[in-house]
Amino acid sequence: MATEHKSNPTEVKPLGKYEAMNATDLAGHIQRLPPEEASTLLARLPESQAADALAELDAEHSIDLLDALPSPLLSSLLGLLAPNRAADLIGYLHPARRREVLSAVPAETSASIAALLRYPVDSAGGIMSNRFIALQADQTIEECHHMLRAREKEETEDVAYLYVTDAQKKLVGVVSLRDLVFRKPDRRIGEIMSREVAHVQVDDDQEKIAQLFERHHYLGLPVLEHDGTIVGVVPASEVIDVVQEEATEDMQLMVGLSGEEHALTPWRRSFKPRLLWLNINLVTAFAAASVVNLFESTIAQWTVLAVFLPIIAGQGGNAGIQTLTVIIRAMATGEVSAGDGKKALFKELILGLLNGLAIGLAVGTLCFIWKGSFVLGVVVAAAMLLNMLAAALSGVLVPYGLRALRIDPALASSIIVTTVTDVAGFFFFLGLATLVLHWHSVAGFLKSWVPLLPN
Amino acid sequence: MATEHKSNPTEVKPLGKYEAMNATDLAGHIQRLPPEEASTLLARLPESQAADALAELDAEHSIDLLDALPSPLLSSLLGLLAPNRAADLIGYLHPARRREVLSAVPAETSASIAALLRYPVDSAGGIMSNRFIALQADQTIEECHHMLRAREKEETEDVAYLYVTDAQKKLVGVVSLRDLVFRKPDRRIGEIMSREVAHVQVDDDQEKIAQLFERHHYLGLPVLEHDGTIVGVVPASEVIDVVQEEATEDMQLMVGLSGEEHALTPWRRSFKPRLLWLNINLVTAFAAASVVNLFESTIAQWTVLAVFLPIIAGQGGNAGIQTLTVIIRAMATGEVSAGDGKKALFKELILGLLNGLAIGLAVGTLCFIWKGSFVLGVVVAAAMLLNMLAAALSGVLVPYGLRALRIDPALASSIIVTTVTDVAGFFFFLGLATLVLHWHSVAGFLKSWVPLLPN
Repeated sequence: MATEHKSNPTEVKPLGKYEAMNATDLAGHIQRLPPEEASTLLARLPESQAADALAELDAEHSIDLLDALPSPLLSSLLGLLAPNRAADLIGYLHPARRREVLSAVPAETSASIAALLRYPVDSAGGIMSNRFIALQADQTIEECHHMLRAREKEETEDVAYLYVTDAQKKLVGVVSLRDLVFRKPDRRIGEIMSREVAHVQVDDDQEKIAQLFERHHYLGLPVLEHDGTIVGVVPASEVIDVVQEEATEDMQLMVGLSGEEHALTPWRRSFKPRLLWLNINLVTAFAAASVVNLFESTIAQWTVLAVFLPIIAGQGGNAGIQTLTVIIRAMATGEVSAGDGKKALFKELILGLLNGLAIGLAVGTLCFIWKGSFVLGVVVAAAMLLNMLAAALSGVLVPYGLRALRIDPALASSIIVTTVTDVAGFFFFLGLATLVLHWHSVAGFLKSWVPLLPN
Repeated sequence: MATEHKSNPTEVKPLGKYEAMNATDLAGHIQRLPPEEASTLLARLPESQAADALAELDAEHSIDLLDALPSPLLSSLLGLLAPNRAADLIGYLHPARRREVLSAVPAETSASIAALLRYPVDSAGGIMSNRFIALQADQTIEECHHMLRAREKEETEDVAYLYVTDAQKKLVGVVSLRDLVFRKPDRRIGEIMSREVAHVQVDDDQEKIAQLFERHHYLGLPVLEHDGTIVGVVPASEVIDVVQEEATEDMQLMVGLSGEEHALTPWRRSFKPRLLWLNINLVTAFAAASVVNLFESTIAQWTVLAVFLPIIAGQGGNAGIQTLTVIIRAMATGEVSAGDGKKALFKELILGLLNGLAIGLAVGTLCFIWKGSFVLGVVVAAAMLLNMLAAALSGVLVPYGLRALRIDPALASSIIVTTVTDVAGFFFFLGLATLVLHWHSVAGFLKSWVPLLPN
């Protein structure tokens, strides 16, 4: 048997190299291995090191690895993690496997993990840690010192503050660790604590929480149930992840990605969601094509119009996405509230008008120089101006509209905005060109309705 | 004079309403006032409250307000702020005014602010706080308690850790505030400190620092000069701002915005930078238009081609921007290193091929159903497939190329990628259509070169 083991290349690889690695580097290495190899490596490492590496894994990236790990191993490793880390990982398992894995974790930890799993992943409850130390208002500082010393080994999220609760576990105050160091040992917590405690509700959205942290530079905030009991702590370090995640989600949703795709996501996983949105984009592209189709006879008479289609659409689309990006970002960072929509719209319309005039004039002039047709230049310039206004309008109204419908304002927004600018741009451009081509009949038609029009 | 005062509406507004506001709300209110009114209000508020509100201002948003504040008032308010906050604000003043304001700030604070201003705003030095407490290794815990108690009033960034330095101010270790609470008072810092201290260099880029915090969930990191002396601390709370800022910058640079525009930035400030990029986009749009122009005679013969131009360009552009968004984001979060470029390219090419086949087939079939021309369907499908491959290729190569040239990989990247997909798409589509139209002469030409070709 021993010789057979030696012939197995996985078995003879010296572990020493891995044992010397810190948890983060090890996690990075594991994440790049095929799931089966990663699973074998985790099984061979000392349990505490394997658990530390697991804690550093990016849960979203590690679904295949988690699926490959034998349940008993996964249970014993998760039992060694902080409950919120364990919950992050377990959250990605199928419900049946989740129950199986959780049932083999020590009861207390398993209850703690299960408690965290009740909250949506993007709520305060989903990102908080429920390992924290609560003090009582009637304790003296010295009593606290004793209590803290007794619990020294626990890994808790103290984020420089300790929270004070009453007998019903309701939050009544906060003291800083510094206070415990500085103040006289015989003073009571109730005398030195601050009673105004910034906090979040357990179901608050993580984006709102990130805005609070950004504005006030908190190092941590306590999380309360609706009855005022404290159930956890959100540390600033966790909020950094939230901000990255939300930014990635916004950027991706805007252009029709899943919101969770990574550069090294296996292509099999990316294929379907991308194709879905490309198909939706296809429908919108056909909408733009039908506008061109409406005016096919105009293009047949005046082929050079086709040359300017990409300019009208491209400029309008770019301007619309500039506006959209500013608005989506302002919504995410909390810079604009609902009442600011009008101000933002006004600003964008002014910019659309001015840039439309400037770009319209430039495009019209270039067109005149290139093609020698003054009329064509005027048509291109006018269509450009109108499309820049459509771009400004849709760049603001699309995200505000989505939000009013309680849809993520980023969702497919750039696809919608470019559809508006394509459709509107082609309609203005080819419509104006058609009016020009048929000017005599248009004039005749107008005269039949407005008999007083001068001849 | 008293009656004259009463007739001035600004003067009679009761201050009470503002005095009851917390600093953040007050800052938000001030930021929405016209600069002159805001300046008047700040002058009338109690100095400490005005300083607190100033500390909460978003520096980037407040350039006009800072310009409107009289220098003596600004100097005395800045003197009350933490040096890193003061430096953030002063950094936005013109150099001459900066010197004037700084000269009236108390010498010690002014030196501290000036020290911070030496570092680039997006480096560790630019985001750190230089108010921190350093311990000595040979102090006992009890001595530390005395020292800390003596400095209790100072606002320092302790972020739950205290750093230990030697006589040359070089960082030699770290103790947690909890250690000071838990351990016996007669132990020396050198015995209980941890000697391995994660840290950053003063000129490290803020994006790299954000990646470190995200990976390791630090609450704070010490900042070292190249000789190992500690010069500041970056708290996690500050990194939240950095992450938001970098995400905003990436999103904006991609689409040709300044990287610093906000939804409520006055339009006068946004006008020029936007117009600049719209003009650059115009040049690229003309590049796409010239490709169409090359094939004008083909379109004159086969007008329906114009109808499909927006579909080829729109789908290719959307697919390219999907790829680009994934790559830019992966670069920002540190998910891909230089060596991962090939893997990412491979994944995107596979997706481009598969989605190109799927979308090409769909577009080709729809085209055949709509227009009844099988040949047109094949041309559209083939051009679609080729353009999806061009989209994948440019979506990866553009950001990697920009980075290789030491340019921000996000800069104008979506403009470049959509130019590639427009130009390539039109070229494939109209080029193939021309080959089909002139198939007889093409076949004849080929035969003259390959005489063995069957008739």
